[in-house]
Amino acid sequence: MTQPQESWLLGVVLLLATATTTHQANPSCHPVKEGMLNVHLVCHTHDDVGWLKTVDQYFYGAHNSIQRAGVQYILDSVVDALLKNPDRKFIYVESAFFFRWWNEQTPERKDVVKSLVRSGQLEFIGGGWCMNDEATAHYNAIIDQMTLGLVKLNETFGEAARPTVAWQIDPFGHSREQASIFAQMGFDGLFFGRLDHDDKNHRWDTHTMEMMWQGSQNLGDAAWLFTGVLPRGYSPPVGFCFDILCSDEPIMDDPRLHDYNVDKKVDAFIKAAKAEGEGYATKHIIMTMGEDFNYQEAGMWMSNLDKLIRYVNKRQSSGSQVNVLYSTPSCYLSALHDANQTWTSKTDDFFPYASGNHSYWTGYFTSRPTLKGYVRQTNGILQAVKQVASLLGMGHSEGLETLKEAMGVLQHHDAVSGTEKQHVADDYSERLAIGTKAALGVMGQALSKLQPVEALQKEKDGGTIHFCPLLNISSCPITESSSAFIMTVYNPIARPISHYVRLPVPSDTAYKVTDYKGNAVKAQLVPIPKPVLSIPGRHSTAAYELVFQATDIPPLGFLRYHIKRTSSYRILRQQISKTHSHVLGGDDPIELSGDENLAISVDPKTGLLKRVGAVRPGPIQMIPVSQNFLVYPGMAGNNTKEQYRASGAYIFRPNATEAREIAKKVNVVTVEGPLVYEVHQEWGPWVSQVIRSYMGHLNLEMEWLVGPIPISRDKIGLEVVSRVDWSSITTGNTFYTDSNGREMLKRVKDYRPTWRLHNLEPVAGNYYPVNSRLILDNGPDFRAAILTDRSQGGTSLNPGQMELMVHRRLFYDDAFGVGEPLNETQFGEGLVARGKHYLLHSSFASPECDFGCLHRTLGEELLLPPLYAFEETSALAHTWTNTAVNKWGGLGMNLPSNVHLLTLEPWGDNLLLLRLEHMYEKGESDTHSSPVTVSLKGLLADWAITGVEEMILSANLRKKDEHRLKWKVKTTSTAQASPSEQHRTNNIVHHQDPLSVTLGPMEIRTFVLTVKKASSRF
Amino acid sequence: MTQPQESWLLGVVLLLATATTTHQANPSCHPVKEGMLNVHLVCHTHDDVGWLKTVDQYFYGAHNSIQRAGVQYILDSVVDALLKNPDRKFIYVESAFFFRWWNEQTPERKDVVKSLVRSGQLEFIGGGWCMNDEATAHYNAIIDQMTLGLVKLNETFGEAARPTVAWQIDPFGHSREQASIFAQMGFDGLFFGRLDHDDKNHRWDTHTMEMMWQGSQNLGDAAWLFTGVLPRGYSPPVGFCFDILCSDEPIMDDPRLHDYNVDKKVDAFIKAAKAEGEGYATKHIIMTMGEDFNYQEAGMWMSNLDKLIRYVNKRQSSGSQVNVLYSTPSCYLSALHDANQTWTSKTDDFFPYASGNHSYWTGYFTSRPTLKGYVRQTNGILQAVKQVASLLGMGHSEGLETLKEAMGVLQHHDAVSGTEKQHVADDYSERLAIGTKAALGVMGQALSKLQPVEALQKEKDGGTIHFCPLLNISSCPITESSSAFIMTVYNPIARPISHYVRLPVPSDTAYKVTDYKGNAVKAQLVPIPKPVLSIPGRHSTAAYELVFQATDIPPLGFLRYHIKRTSSYRILRQQISKTHSHVLGGDDPIELSGDENLAISVDPKTGLLKRVGAVRPGPIQMIPVSQNFLVYPGMAGNNTKEQYRASGAYIFRPNATEAREIAKKVNVVTVEGPLVYEVHQEWGPWVSQVIRSYMGHLNLEMEWLVGPIPISRDKIGLEVVSRVDWSSITTGNTFYTDSNGREMLKRVKDYRPTWRLHNLEPVAGNYYPVNSRLILDNGPDFRAAILTDRSQGGTSLNPGQMELMVHRRLFYDDAFGVGEPLNETQFGEGLVARGKHYLLHSSFASPECDFGCLHRTLGEELLLPPLYAFEETSALAHTWTNTAVNKWGGLGMNLPSNVHLLTLEPWGDNLLLLRLEHMYEKGESDTHSSPVTVSLKGLLADWAITGVEEMILSANLRKKDEHRLKWKVKTTSTAQASPSEQHRTNNIVHHQDPLSVTLGPMEIRTFVLTVKKASSRF
Repeated sequence: MTQPQESWLLGVVLLLATATTTHQANPSCHPVKEGMLNVHLVCHTHDDVGWLKTVDQYFYGAHNSIQRAGVQYILDSVVDALLKNPDRKFIYVESAFFFRWWNEQTPERKDVVKSLVRSGQLEFIGGGWCMNDEATAHYNAIIDQMTLGLVKLNETFGEAARPTVAWQIDPFGHSREQASIFAQMGFDGLFFGRLDHDDKNHRWDTHTMEMMWQGSQNLGDAAWLFTGVLPRGYSPPVGFCFDILCSDEPIMDDPRLHDYNVDKKVDAFIKAAKAEGEGYATKHIIMTMGEDFNYQEAGMWMSNLDKLIRYVNKRQSSGSQVNVLYSTPSCYLSALHDANQTWTSKTDDFFPYASGNHSYWTGYFTSRPTLKGYVRQTNGILQAVKQVASLLGMGHSEGLETLKEAMGVLQHHDAVSGTEKQHVADDYSERLAIGTKAALGVMGQALSKLQPVEALQKEKDGGTIHFCPLLNISSCPITESSSAFIMTVYNPIARPISHYVRLPVPSDTAYKVTDYKGNAVKAQLVPIPKPVLSIPGRHSTAAYELVFQATDIPPLGFLRYHIKRTSSYRILRQQISKTHSHVLGGDDPIELSGDENLAISVDPKTGLLKRVGAVRPGPIQMIPVSQNFLVYPGMAGNNTKEQYRASGAYIFRPNATEAREIAKKVNVVTVEGPLVYEVHQEWGPWVSQVIRSYMGHLNLEMEWLVGPIPISRDKIGLEVVSRVDWSSITTGNTFYTDSNGREMLKRVKDYRPTWRLHNLEPVAGNYYPVNSRLILDNGPDFRAAILTDRSQGGTSLNPGQMELMVHRRLFYDDAFGVGEPLNETQFGEGLVARGKHYLLHSSFASPECDFGCLHRTLGEELLLPPLYAFEETSALAHTWTNTAVNKWGGLGMNLPSNVHLLTLEPWGDNLLLLRLEHMYEKGESDTHSSPVTVSLKGLLADWAITGVEEMILSANLRKKDEHRLKWKVKTTSTAQASPSEQHRTNNIVHHQDPLSVTLGPMEIRTFVLTVKKASSRF
Repeated sequence: MTQPQESWLLGVVLLLATATTTHQANPSCHPVKEGMLNVHLVCHTHDDVGWLKTVDQYFYGAHNSIQRAGVQYILDSVVDALLKNPDRKFIYVESAFFFRWWNEQTPERKDVVKSLVRSGQLEFIGGGWCMNDEATAHYNAIIDQMTLGLVKLNETFGEAARPTVAWQIDPFGHSREQASIFAQMGFDGLFFGRLDHDDKNHRWDTHTMEMMWQGSQNLGDAAWLFTGVLPRGYSPPVGFCFDILCSDEPIMDDPRLHDYNVDKKVDAFIKAAKAEGEGYATKHIIMTMGEDFNYQEAGMWMSNLDKLIRYVNKRQSSGSQVNVLYSTPSCYLSALHDANQTWTSKTDDFFPYASGNHSYWTGYFTSRPTLKGYVRQTNGILQAVKQVASLLGMGHSEGLETLKEAMGVLQHHDAVSGTEKQHVADDYSERLAIGTKAALGVMGQALSKLQPVEALQKEKDGGTIHFCPLLNISSCPITESSSAFIMTVYNPIARPISHYVRLPVPSDTAYKVTDYKGNAVKAQLVPIPKPVLSIPGRHSTAAYELVFQATDIPPLGFLRYHIKRTSSYRILRQQISKTHSHVLGGDDPIELSGDENLAISVDPKTGLLKRVGAVRPGPIQMIPVSQNFLVYPGMAGNNTKEQYRASGAYIFRPNATEAREIAKKVNVVTVEGPLVYEVHQEWGPWVSQVIRSYMGHLNLEMEWLVGPIPISRDKIGLEVVSRVDWSSITTGNTFYTDSNGREMLKRVKDYRPTWRLHNLEPVAGNYYPVNSRLILDNGPDFRAAILTDRSQGGTSLNPGQMELMVHRRLFYDDAFGVGEPLNETQFGEGLVARGKHYLLHSSFASPECDFGCLHRTLGEELLLPPLYAFEETSALAHTWTNTAVNKWGGLGMNLPSNVHLLTLEPWGDNLLLLRLEHMYEKGESDTHSSPVTVSLKGLLADWAITGVEEMILSANLRKKDEHRLKWKVKTTSTAQASPSEQHRTNNIVHHQDPLSVTLGPMEIRTFVLTVKKASSRF
């Protein structure tokens, strides 16, 4: 882990080549007045894609007793209002809402809207399917959801309407990766509303509300993004909210009437404008004239703004230096650009967000862990289905669109964030379920398509392909009930992988597993731990899981297995695991070790993990490490003052600085067999864990099961953390967390890089979002990582500690709007969550795969796990091997080990969208961090690539047509010439061979491929 | 008092001449479907012209924290919504709001609105300046406010847009006079929302929700009005309010979405429609799709109604018999008319309104007595200024318009009704003050115009005409401080009157009063009672009132008086009254009597009135009568159930069935002099009264002063009544109250003419609105009346009793929306109210003026009291008599004693609006009730009438163009052919001599006169 973040002390003015800019002032922007304070009024509505109401309820304006909000009326009335005065402008952000509305409009109305877009009166800003969360959304899903919205906008309104300003006004903190992604998507700037209150004060005082954000430590200026902090979140100045949902006084300008208030209003506005001008660097300021779900009666807002503009500007004739205009973020940005200012820069991120001394918005990093897990799992399914639909030339499909839109919605900052009301969370889950089902229908069609007709007839009884969505609770009807079935294991990674399959099965039954060659596959039956068996709502006959290894699954391909129950006691004896229930208190260490995996040692007094080491030829280096579950009691409070803030859906605020032990010791059962060994630990009735090591796998899997979190008599909520403690490490307060699953960011306890932190919340103020991994780096000899299967909050509060919050149950609302305590229940009890952590240590590394390689490789496998499909069969294994296609791969080659196939997606007739990503940062791996060149030629097994067009990341503009604004920047790091130069070099390479793609560290390149069927396999 | 109300038992079907109707189906109405249940959806907004917010705040949408309501946005968005779908229709009602909005529109927008009106998409219904209250508004003001709105509509949109349906959806009970007025204004029908809950149930059960209301016992079918009770007030059916202020589910019709609800919604709607159909007589029902201040985002309502109509009617293809359409009240009325139904009729009114067994809306008859008094007083000023502006050819003036609009606003059913919030009441008062000031400016100009320049120079020092608006608290700066001033007394009645002037003056000062001939006028100095001197906020040096009689003031003309302080002790001694403070308890009657006035006797034990009689040659017939003030303690309650209903701004609900005495005996001071004698009574610190009789006047004036009503420790409010008890009357439970100051209605205790009353509120359920008078009629020998100076609630709970509520102070809200208890305060104390009752008895009558003549003549004088103006002067009396015009009259003749000049108003260049009214009912007076003919020739002293066009009452249609719908009616009284026939006869008379106007009893005729200046007096 080498981080180029330390060098911000040295300021160097980098004059970017402004001469070469092709930027032209947007002709639809109203002119500003030189020398005056120009106030850019931005009419906007903030339309949550679900929060207190579901996305459908918001669209239609249903359940208005919860919140008076109906997006259809907003768009209806905005169009009317814009037509009334050509000076008026409006921006719209959330494509999920826009296109739902668009699809209900008449052709005439659509033409009207198109003309408003053409004239610049209606401008799309942001433009993603939603305004995604930045802490808990994964970059893969962010890119997908942005692309979904932006490309639809392109298709509908043409490239001229392409959003060029990103608009993240509400997310609760901002990730650097998000800035990097926006930059790569061709955005010229980003505006947001929420940042730490002290950070904001500091920026206000130093006129650095606007800056250049260097979004990547790997990509150079390709990831730089002009970034502005909005003055008041996204609200208008006090007294100037003219919405039907607001109560500010309108402009009453008929002097005969009793409440004439023009003078008062103009005075107040000018005062507000001047006050705002204090915090900003130029003679331009932006005023966000809107709030949540504003503009349901747009005329109300705009008729008052018409008057405000008229009367404020009228004052200029008597010497006022304030000029107001209808503007948009892009017009404002353009004015800032023209101001010829030199801007400061920023290299870290805006996490955590504290709105007050005791209000750290770090709870939502973990809130609703099952929803977060479901979202991550579904992302993998979506990628796999997109791949298969691409490889089989299936083109556009309703099923795939349904899941793309559902995933788009789920990235919203009140969706995957877990900060929605319960009924909305339920609706989100339903969307994922519906979307997954629809997409898996496509997957099923694809799999069927690859089988010869005779195989289909022979092997299937029901003719149906099943997917098992309840494997997360070790339940799967077909594997539990079928005496014989075929299992397909699809590998969505562009390299062959080997993968341990776990299938729920009834007890006392052995299985014959046969591979595509007809060989018997070694299997092991592992008992399902009791706490899993008793998960509320689990209706399953499975007491065991059948484990076997699917070896060498082709890239973007599958292996199929024939699995058949057997009554052979011999086989059962081979497969059944050796289990041992341990009595604690002795001195004999409980130790397990196998073959080319990890040896672990459990403390015989406490039952907790004690040591771990990689099994290799020679003596095992056992590293001392403990792991425990602890709870923070959540602060109860009425939120009337900062110090009474409760821990809630957004806020993490423990009522103690130390987490509490759940149990002094834990029950331990060990399970051993030929493929995997496990330690089953129980902390009591609602916390348990399986520590697991597979033969040949160099990571320690820790599958946690938490819940129902009990309700104490005093109704104090509990927030459960898993803490790993490397007791050999005794110094250092630095740790690293990933940014949306891509680059790592350095975190230092009780410290912020750009302002002086006074942390009154010693725990919550040190929590950071962990999308995929938390890393300790004490030099080459000691690096450790925990990888997660979903987004969580994490920290390191003491040297050697790694802490991740896995579940929360709280009984007080934290008063930031959701209006419900985060008290998830199911079947009348607290919700149970199950998930996995994976522990890595630098000592597990090898010459072929160093520590960086370990976590990047595992990270890719966790992101895109194999997809299982099942078919019942009456065919015998040996007939089956001869008649069916049981091994198949869609790629014509394996990608290099440092290249991630990020996207392969149907893109239209004979068109595919391809994204390749270098999945290592600079210096992260000695062997994998170097630039790599891939030839696309032969990439696809069944398709010839007849054309390649490189696109920007969001695929809505050809790379060669990209012209982002150039800015003068006072950089805080020395010029990193290489990445962008390298990028330019890459471009040059393209000219020579458009199919040869070179990727620098962390580089993503996006292509639209024109393809032609080149095989007869389907 | 003979009343033709008794004969409703006999039902006779009157087939009116439908063959001669010129009615044609409105082509803009959507077709209905024969045989189906046709549901007429009426999109409407109910826009209170002030209530919880002021009218300006409502217009602009200010103070939305009080109520989310902004009329400008309603009209903005309705126009947009109508343009989107030509099927959509909308009605607008309140012209006060409409024209304020209209005046802010661009010419292009006005054209758009005109086209919507032309096409029938936007229809004006009601169309008055406001939707006036029916209990507390006077007919004079009702006619004015309706005319103001209707004529502006005519001027703006032409006669084709003339409203033909009256729309009183919210007033809290309905007066028969209102129906009569609407009929005379050419309306075809009336719809309203509120009536007694038992009445409504009865009508529902008997399918008589719609009926023919016979609005007059004098005018025949000219006053018949088709009247419909709306099914749910003015609300839509439950579940179908699609406004931004509502929370019902929208129609969600995209089957892919999670909340698709079309089937559910359509089922519910059809069920609601069928249920509504149960209560109505035809296959047509009306649904009012709107609520208070709905349609701020009209698109929301209408886009859902579009869908509702589409999906409900789609069901017809599978056999549904329900047909829904966009409609308007006039389209609905037209469908009812086409249904060829025979309708029942109604002859009484809809008072009192009870929404529940304990919720009688009879409190507002009295609520805010000072506001009610101010409104009535201002009406007089308005009429006088209109007259003067007409007589002097001043044409349209801003000042007059300001007052007309203010008075228009004040007639609103939450204005003069007293049911608005305190800050709104304050705003209403301010409007009256501003309007009065503006109109009096016109008056001042007119008065100046009549004076020769030299007189103006000589007599005036400040050059300013003063009006004394605080005479109601016996305060007037100019009369108090000036040593010499000119007083103008203007008589707005079309006959000469004699009038006692009272002017506040300091103590110990006598005045020389000189009339226009130079004669000294007899005057009397009367001490102002102590309770008046100590009214909070009264800053006055006046301790006396100077009383003199202005004799024989010309009709629509004035007399001027020169009034000068004198230090003459002789004069002082002549003028000063003889006062005597009585010690109660003796046996000697306290008796006062003068010359040709009333003798009164006060009980020497209690100080209360004991007997009264007219002083005539011969022995005085003294009638036993007592008068006392009593209080009802107001019910305190939380309104959670009917039985917990509190007495409040709307509701009168005493917590006892008997009113409580305020004092066992009252302090008495008697005051005697040559012009007036008075009994000053004090019930204690907050109730007092002056009983007064002027020489030559045959009525007993009782000037009450009530307040600050004290706050008891238990916060039980008090409602103060004045009760007159004619102890000689011991039988009978019938009394009469006026309807809006015009015809009298018979009231019977604990009885309703058309349904069986179960009265659980023995006091409140017998209260009725008293606009001008309460009458007992025990036959020719015993008739008694109390005339009021403002609207009050009144009753007769026992034989011989006459009870009027004069003031109320309450500490609980009654939960009908106003959200404030009726706790009026001023200067930190409860508000003080002062007003007058006038007692008449049939024994005061004479051969020239019977009882009917007594109360009608006095009623006219109270409605249009003389208007005073003052100018300081340095001129001596004798110079002044020679140089100034001190007697002036605008009429060329006196109108007959039974004709009231209701309106004389500038109506455009050389145009005047004239209304003449026969001010007697049939049989009310032996001498005055007969038809009367007036020749307009010579009516105006300075103008020749060159053209006469008879108009309908609202002056927005020529009488000869009037074609009201004819209906088949099952009449409940025998056909009163005479009035309408007589009216037709009148028309015939016109053809012979258009200047000869015959009026039957209670008939009002309206003319636009074309005039030509015919004098050189100004």
